[in-house]
Amino acid sequence: MFWILFAVFLAACFAAGSTGGLFPPGQWYRDLTKPRWTPPNWVFPVTWTTLYLCMATAGARVALAEGNSLAMALWSLQIALNGLWTPVFFGLRKIRLGLIVLSALWLSVAATMIALWSVDWIAGLLFVPYLVWVSIAGALNASVLRLNPGKVA
Amino acid sequence: MFWILFAVFLAACFAAGSTGGLFPPGQWYRDLTKPRWTPPNWVFPVTWTTLYLCMATAGARVALAEGNSLAMALWSLQIALNGLWTPVFFGLRKIRLGLIVLSALWLSVAATMIALWSVDWIAGLLFVPYLVWVSIAGALNASVLRLNPGKVA
Repeated sequence: MFWILFAVFLAACFAAGSTGGLFPPGQWYRDLTKPRWTPPNWVFPVTWTTLYLCMATAGARVALAEGNSLAMALWSLQIALNGLWTPVFFGLRKIRLGLIVLSALWLSVAATMIALWSVDWIAGLLFVPYLVWVSIAGALNASVLRLNPGKVA
Repeated sequence: MFWILFAVFLAACFAAGSTGGLFPPGQWYRDLTKPRWTPPNWVFPVTWTTLYLCMATAGARVALAEGNSLAMALWSLQIALNGLWTPVFFGLRKIRLGLIVLSALWLSVAATMIALWSVDWIAGLLFVPYLVWVSIAGALNASVLRLNPGKVA
């Protein structure tokens, strides 16, 4: 049963992550002024794939545990918000709204991590890299917002 | 606890549904040839709001029940796919890919409905209107694909 659950949660991750392939960075992103610590483009899909494996493992572990109700509801919320950032940032090129989406995602990931941890500490731990990465993404989005005042929609 | 869970699941629904406001139909959709039974635009947000209330109720009921693991994993999968269609169809204007996304959504909604039903028949029943509506949306997408051969990306 664990592997079926893992596969379903992983499919949810890749459904959200498919927006990364559908709305690629492109020329507009290349032309933006970015901070010096901006990771190269290839880092993003590699990191996300690793995070998805952690997120699906955490989801499957807690799905099988008792008292999982809040953790499961929050897992759903964070994956719905996860798929939203790329269409907003790369699709609509709305940098400010992207930061708002990332802030909501950060809060939902933090809440999910705490709820997972209260059921199964390993599952909670598996969400820590995700929270770190969303923090980095948020700092990058905020920097891009500050460095490109003329391109903010 | 029910109402906290209901609020979290409803927030997930509105996160997915916000793509409807971010990628509105616009002139491109107005100019497409559509079947005569196409619902007027105002029907869509009204229907989705009703469906979201049903989906969140079903999620919260089953989150509190035992043996909910598969239903919870599938609830996450369907909401991740739910937010994908609008950016693909109205954002990228990819009618064929939109139909593929809707087919995946239909399958995930059907699977979620069955998994919910096996835990709590009322929750399963609350997913029936959702499955009916995704069937109608799929038929509409398929018709638009057939009627606009020159505009298919």
